[in-house]
Amino acid sequence: MIQKKKYAKAAKIIPDGYESANHFFEAVFGDKEMIWMGQNTNELHIGHNEDVHKAMIECIESDEYCKYPPPEGFTELQSLILKDLELEDLSIYINAGATESLYLAMNAVLSKGDNVITPDPGYLIIDNFASRFASEVRAVKIYSEENNYKLTPKLVRENMDENTKVILLIDPLNPLGSSYTEEEIKEFAEIAIENDLFLLHDVTYRDFAQKHTIAAKYAPNNTITTYSFSKIFGMAGLRLGAVISSKEFIDVVKSIIINDVGTSIVAQAAALAALKSKDQWAERVKETTFENQKIIKEAVDKCEGVFLPVYPSSANMMVIDLSGAGIDPEDMSSYLIEKKVFTRQGSYTSNTFGDRYLRVSYSIDPEKVKVFAREFVLAVEALRTK
Amino acid sequence: MIQKKKYAKAAKIIPDGYESANHFFEAVFGDKEMIWMGQNTNELHIGHNEDVHKAMIECIESDEYCKYPPPEGFTELQSLILKDLELEDLSIYINAGATESLYLAMNAVLSKGDNVITPDPGYLIIDNFASRFASEVRAVKIYSEENNYKLTPKLVRENMDENTKVILLIDPLNPLGSSYTEEEIKEFAEIAIENDLFLLHDVTYRDFAQKHTIAAKYAPNNTITTYSFSKIFGMAGLRLGAVISSKEFIDVVKSIIINDVGTSIVAQAAALAALKSKDQWAERVKETTFENQKIIKEAVDKCEGVFLPVYPSSANMMVIDLSGAGIDPEDMSSYLIEKKVFTRQGSYTSNTFGDRYLRVSYSIDPEKVKVFAREFVLAVEALRTK
Repeated sequence: MIQKKKYAKAAKIIPDGYESANHFFEAVFGDKEMIWMGQNTNELHIGHNEDVHKAMIECIESDEYCKYPPPEGFTELQSLILKDLELEDLSIYINAGATESLYLAMNAVLSKGDNVITPDPGYLIIDNFASRFASEVRAVKIYSEENNYKLTPKLVRENMDENTKVILLIDPLNPLGSSYTEEEIKEFAEIAIENDLFLLHDVTYRDFAQKHTIAAKYAPNNTITTYSFSKIFGMAGLRLGAVISSKEFIDVVKSIIINDVGTSIVAQAAALAALKSKDQWAERVKETTFENQKIIKEAVDKCEGVFLPVYPSSANMMVIDLSGAGIDPEDMSSYLIEKKVFTRQGSYTSNTFGDRYLRVSYSIDPEKVKVFAREFVLAVEALRTK
Repeated sequence: MIQKKKYAKAAKIIPDGYESANHFFEAVFGDKEMIWMGQNTNELHIGHNEDVHKAMIECIESDEYCKYPPPEGFTELQSLILKDLELEDLSIYINAGATESLYLAMNAVLSKGDNVITPDPGYLIIDNFASRFASEVRAVKIYSEENNYKLTPKLVRENMDENTKVILLIDPLNPLGSSYTEEEIKEFAEIAIENDLFLLHDVTYRDFAQKHTIAAKYAPNNTITTYSFSKIFGMAGLRLGAVISSKEFIDVVKSIIINDVGTSIVAQAAALAALKSKDQWAERVKETTFENQKIIKEAVDKCEGVFLPVYPSSANMMVIDLSGAGIDPEDMSSYLIEKKVFTRQGSYTSNTFGDRYLRVSYSIDPEKVKVFAREFVLAVEALRTK
């Protein structure tokens, strides 16, 4: 009776023994012993987030949650996000997560006939969104040293044409952790302005990078920036994000929104408190995350045929290439789940290269990273076919 | 540069003196003295919601919000919602509000060439969603005593054709508070089954009705039910809802979702606590809301040329027709805002009849309803032109 809509494949992998993805996630979520390296989330605020807890609890006790918040977000939060990005002259729409922001961005600018350039590996739900509104998603293969494991300006020029409307820059890149220099960002800005197209700059992981450049500074009218509270802020389960661009663009977004009665006031209260105290915690969270990479690198270096394509990573996750040891990443993630370590097989972030790598994130207690490191070395030896 | 998408008008009314709808809402939201009768929300839990507060605070203190919840909602919450509707055999997808559910429903079933039948007056964002995916939205004029101020089976038969894919039943109806008998629901179910189309049954206000029938009981494979935590549960600012239908339908929804990383775990914790204690509070909230209508009726009866099209209302809101007194509803709502009473002019819920009525909601302290009643009578005399 219902015609199934056909969109680009969005990864949905159900491990053996679970009847659905939802049951798998619920089981993993509910397991207090599980080491959480599978979703790029961040538990380094635990024990340090009294002000955020307090803000949420005060919000709850005020009973203001019985009312709808303003539809586009509280002005103070809008201002603090724009200030955090140093994009005070641009417009913003707050919503229930960067994922929703990415959907709205694709919906706002794409029409049939358009094509979109995305990186492979990348974050596949974005390709899926693009395929709902454009005629073609050009997933450019970037998994090689030659491109520094990222979508370069050169690769974009080779793959774009007059119908290209959006270039997706996930920066730092999920899953690889590669990021752009200021020069590269400037070059992308030129491409966007010259060709009257949009950079969709997903900066979800930018605060984990040692250096990061905002494309909207160089092409404010041709950049859509998506912002997340799920990673550096450690608030994945509160679901809050934003999209930032020109007033013209945000006005279009407002005409196509999905939720016209606002975003969780509890999440906004948490976000306000976190942004106000960001100076006090950002460096600690970033540095612990960065240092955790060394523990993983040491383990990987013990395993012949296994390597890190990007090291150090600019994000709170990285890719471990298993192909030289002949290990199927699905076997590796299944093995590790049994050892209470949740990671992601490559097929979650690539349709082409997914059989080569495991993705691990590490904004967690270094002691837990050490458990992973130990189990990983054992796993490689147990699963090795080469 | 961006092509503006053209959709059915969704009400966005900015009162004089505010630069945007968002600024207006933020000003009203922040005004602690404002009597809140403009958004059908519910503050009757205040002072009675310790278990809900406790559940949210425990959730926050567990720090589990640093992780993503299962993408389709917690199984326990899914089960409790289905049980609440007595639809245990159907499938469910939990998301960030009934509004999102309505969007997903329209996206899942509509294609170009289809038309959708909706009531006018009604909740205009739903017409807007329908217009994004169907070729035509047939807003059927229902504002007359002849139809009991609702979209009747007779009106549906007169307006449908072979391309009709969805019949929107807002039940009880926002803004009028009209509702359906079991016989009418059975007749709609027959129409849906016979013609291979969908009833979209928005039951947001059902727990305020003295009697209510779930259409999915009679046409489980042809009904999409949308469920809200914003009204009877008093959790508008937490943003949580669900869509319930056949497994076939929910599988399609899962393939077109906007948010693939779950819905606020704090909101889900609150919802779990509220559903578990619903037996203890539902009758009190419903009866206080119902009794508040009498206060409004008395005030309206004092005003010549002013009447209540539907009384008693089956919802927590009703329409007050001002046309016989020659009062523009926008003037009335602006007048009342100055008196610290937030109501809604008719144009928010009708493009055709919006100049005739004011919408007021009343899940609030009876003392506040009395303030409204007093101010309303004075307002009618101040604004009367007939």
